[in-house]
Amino acid sequence: MAKKTEKRFAIGVDYGTNSVRALIVDISDGTEIASCVFDYPSGEAGILLDAKDPNLARQNPADYIEGFVKSVRGAVNSAKKKRGFSPDAVVGIGVDTTGSTPLPVDRNGQPLALKPAFKNNLAAQAWLWKDHTSHAEAAEITEKAARSKDKYLAKCGGAYSSEWFWAKLLHCKRTAPKVFQAAYSWVELADFVPAYVTGNLDPDTMPRGICAAGHKAMYHDDWGGLPGKPFLKRLDPDLARIREHYATRAAAADQKAGELSAEIAKQVGLPAGVAVAVGAFDAHLGAVGAGIKPGTLAKIIGTSTCDMMVAPNDAKLPDIPGLCGIVPGSIIPGMYGLEAGQSAVGDVFNWFVKHLAPAKYTAKGDPHLNLTREADKLAPGESGLLALDWNNGNHTILVDPLLTGLLVGQTLHTSAPEIYRSLLEATAFGALTIINRFEEYGIKVREVVNCGGIAEKNPFVMQIYADVCNRPMKISRSAQTCALGAAICGSVAGGAYRRIEQAQKKMTGVKKQVFRPRQGAANTYAQLYQLYRKLHDAFGMAEYRETLDGVMKDLIAIRDKARRG
Amino acid sequence: MAKKTEKRFAIGVDYGTNSVRALIVDISDGTEIASCVFDYPSGEAGILLDAKDPNLARQNPADYIEGFVKSVRGAVNSAKKKRGFSPDAVVGIGVDTTGSTPLPVDRNGQPLALKPAFKNNLAAQAWLWKDHTSHAEAAEITEKAARSKDKYLAKCGGAYSSEWFWAKLLHCKRTAPKVFQAAYSWVELADFVPAYVTGNLDPDTMPRGICAAGHKAMYHDDWGGLPGKPFLKRLDPDLARIREHYATRAAAADQKAGELSAEIAKQVGLPAGVAVAVGAFDAHLGAVGAGIKPGTLAKIIGTSTCDMMVAPNDAKLPDIPGLCGIVPGSIIPGMYGLEAGQSAVGDVFNWFVKHLAPAKYTAKGDPHLNLTREADKLAPGESGLLALDWNNGNHTILVDPLLTGLLVGQTLHTSAPEIYRSLLEATAFGALTIINRFEEYGIKVREVVNCGGIAEKNPFVMQIYADVCNRPMKISRSAQTCALGAAICGSVAGGAYRRIEQAQKKMTGVKKQVFRPRQGAANTYAQLYQLYRKLHDAFGMAEYRETLDGVMKDLIAIRDKARRG
Repeated sequence: MAKKTEKRFAIGVDYGTNSVRALIVDISDGTEIASCVFDYPSGEAGILLDAKDPNLARQNPADYIEGFVKSVRGAVNSAKKKRGFSPDAVVGIGVDTTGSTPLPVDRNGQPLALKPAFKNNLAAQAWLWKDHTSHAEAAEITEKAARSKDKYLAKCGGAYSSEWFWAKLLHCKRTAPKVFQAAYSWVELADFVPAYVTGNLDPDTMPRGICAAGHKAMYHDDWGGLPGKPFLKRLDPDLARIREHYATRAAAADQKAGELSAEIAKQVGLPAGVAVAVGAFDAHLGAVGAGIKPGTLAKIIGTSTCDMMVAPNDAKLPDIPGLCGIVPGSIIPGMYGLEAGQSAVGDVFNWFVKHLAPAKYTAKGDPHLNLTREADKLAPGESGLLALDWNNGNHTILVDPLLTGLLVGQTLHTSAPEIYRSLLEATAFGALTIINRFEEYGIKVREVVNCGGIAEKNPFVMQIYADVCNRPMKISRSAQTCALGAAICGSVAGGAYRRIEQAQKKMTGVKKQVFRPRQGAANTYAQLYQLYRKLHDAFGMAEYRETLDGVMKDLIAIRDKARRG
Repeated sequence: MAKKTEKRFAIGVDYGTNSVRALIVDISDGTEIASCVFDYPSGEAGILLDAKDPNLARQNPADYIEGFVKSVRGAVNSAKKKRGFSPDAVVGIGVDTTGSTPLPVDRNGQPLALKPAFKNNLAAQAWLWKDHTSHAEAAEITEKAARSKDKYLAKCGGAYSSEWFWAKLLHCKRTAPKVFQAAYSWVELADFVPAYVTGNLDPDTMPRGICAAGHKAMYHDDWGGLPGKPFLKRLDPDLARIREHYATRAAAADQKAGELSAEIAKQVGLPAGVAVAVGAFDAHLGAVGAGIKPGTLAKIIGTSTCDMMVAPNDAKLPDIPGLCGIVPGSIIPGMYGLEAGQSAVGDVFNWFVKHLAPAKYTAKGDPHLNLTREADKLAPGESGLLALDWNNGNHTILVDPLLTGLLVGQTLHTSAPEIYRSLLEATAFGALTIINRFEEYGIKVREVVNCGGIAEKNPFVMQIYADVCNRPMKISRSAQTCALGAAICGSVAGGAYRRIEQAQKKMTGVKKQVFRPRQGAANTYAQLYQLYRKLHDAFGMAEYRETLDGVMKDLIAIRDKARRG
């Protein structure tokens, strides 16, 4: 008999919008043995707001530091109670975070927000991914980049977003020049955490991740890293200064950023010197945790979605219009990471429940379940309704935040569950549009693995997705794919596996239950999708000139057919 | 001093969908001295339904007979308590009814429904205006009329409706041939009541009103009255038989149909021989009661609207596409009566309250008032929403029941009062579209007089109509314009006035409060109406090929401007 080997573990630390979670995973099979969540104490559920500006969303960097210590220590303490675990058996730590969430730092890499002079200055805090104060600057970057000789926008879908790095910096320069002047550099949260816990905070030398740099800061080898100084100077001379203090070579998340410092190690109850991986974004490591590989679409479905794919670097890959980003090594080293997404999914369902569900569905129990119960009794097409899922704009494939929701087909009998179902279906049509866009450009989708809250908890939605997309929908085995993906990176950075793919094979998987398309439903949805695309193209694309006058009649015909059964 | 003249009175009898009202009016100044309402006892609120077919809506003719006696007697008894009234002072009775509401009768004009053999046969009852069982037959009539040498459809907007006379007869022939065979003729309710109370029920000689014949049975002098036998035979040979027993010359509502029979007079407490006017439809006599004259648009706003105008017969009047009807003498003798309307107005507001208003607005008090209170705080355009008011199809100007509602502009913050207001506004845009259509064809709208439940009770809606239409909105003085219009016809038929116009001058008027457009609101609504027309034309007209991709952005721009104030 083979000798029984010692168990080994990796830790994934997942910085979400409202809290941070540490997850301890057995690297031999992905078993999740302990986890601990720390809610950010500052602001409203961790977010610093400004009553005068609904676009503003910032975070206190002190929450990140406290969050690392408390969540990792909590998970370690909990794991110690499990047989086979010991702190010495931890081979590495990986970190994933929201992003783009940049924070201004001083010459030593210390967040300005931690200094007394800037403590209460909102511009000196971390600029959370969903801060939209910089929309004018994003438009300016898009416009100037479009006129640049380098195709800076080709890798990010053709438009620069107000959520992204340079737009936020430019807005800071223009609205809070003192903060900008005091900043020696700006650091993405995904880079800040590994730098902080390994004690390597010097902005000039701290490792920077390819994921954040490539997807949000227009970093690409085609033009030698970050955008050139002449371009940045056209935006603002001071932006060029920041470029000098942002590492010239960005690293992938399987690389070691450093080793856990003695000080932090002591606080979290681990030995000093544990490998810490380069940080990456939550969605990207979520895709890793979901087992992403060429041909596998990893969908993280929550309030919004991220739809991730990878393609071998040696494949000839076209620029794909409408994708949020195509970045070599951003998910798995040696492969292109392709990021798409929907701006609102669960958020749309929540909006309906909050603003439009009558007392009948909200008085008792979970309104979503109450509405689902009635919506589930409807056949596809039976409501006669069709919606566009753009209540928060359209991320992929139109890359346009200035789009809004639409509902058509209402009669004097249209009910709340009918509308609720049509909104669910609309997000499924949005999901199919993304799948189609991948395939139109040669990225074959052979498998869809779903994760995130909605994939975990809502079989009704997943069945609709299967029917609408006419593909099986698989569900990731782990309920914490982001933290699991981070732990996988930790295991590779710590040398337990040579490559992320090897670790994935051991540590990831899908659930037994697969949602398979039902042919009748798929046929009806195929008809409805034609109408969805008509509305999508008519309201979202300048070049569309086809007639819409048949849409309402077609919906009625589909409805009448569905009602006849 | 002039000798004080004896007071004289007229009675208007108004047959609505659920009840009949008798109103006694002082003909010198329109003072309404007594009224009495009788609710139809049969079916659900007077309507006979069929659980198997939601399109079916019939009424028991016995209710009409009992209703005349009970309501008129009640009003007379009540009036007797007023100083100056005596039954001898009643100069005439006018009748208005819903329509097209035809009922099958025997050789003697007796409703088949009153015979034991047909008592429980739904096809033998009166076919209420909103019975939609005959949609297939309506489509067939439209199609065959379009190929006819006579332009039968030119006077009714280009399409024949399932609510109208010949469609209902044809459907009866095909689905209940025994009833059809037993029918010597079919009589509109508006013609049946005067015939019954004057004891002149012979189908071959009973007076038939031009209003019902012209608007619902394609009666027009251009082709010698009802559609020719060859055309009717192409629909069904038996329809031609009915034509033989339908008076060749239809009369206007100022004409005397006959005199109150001794039997009925005794039952209602009036002297025998009181003049009874030819009957007409409620909306048309409502327009009379609202003081309609050339240049005055009379709008009856309730669950749906009727929008009526008149134009002198000597004016050269084009066929106006999309109007429900253009019939000489149907409202005022010697003038064209022009009928337009919206399929759903109050019904749309009620739909929203019933199906989509959250508990916050429905738990306490009137949900409409609760929503109005919040909606009233919004500036025009502030919601960013725009709706099409087609939940029940579009009557004017598209004449298309196969259209549905649409809402665009939703975000994750869109609230119920915002949507409620956008629905109100959508009906106002629909109203403006009708006004514009009249004016496009040379019928100048110099004044708008509103009546009906919503005009009476909802100043918020009327202000929006004033702002959207950028015209003053006047409100009819009488809350019972239909019955008042019928009384006016009674006064003319009884010889107290020579012409309806003379009676109108004495008996009608508007309230002091006029809703006047506010310029800022009107400017914003003018922008929104451009977008409404884009959606209207794109979804409603086959020939529309313009781009819609700016609609969502324009709505956002209008919204942002409104929010900045």
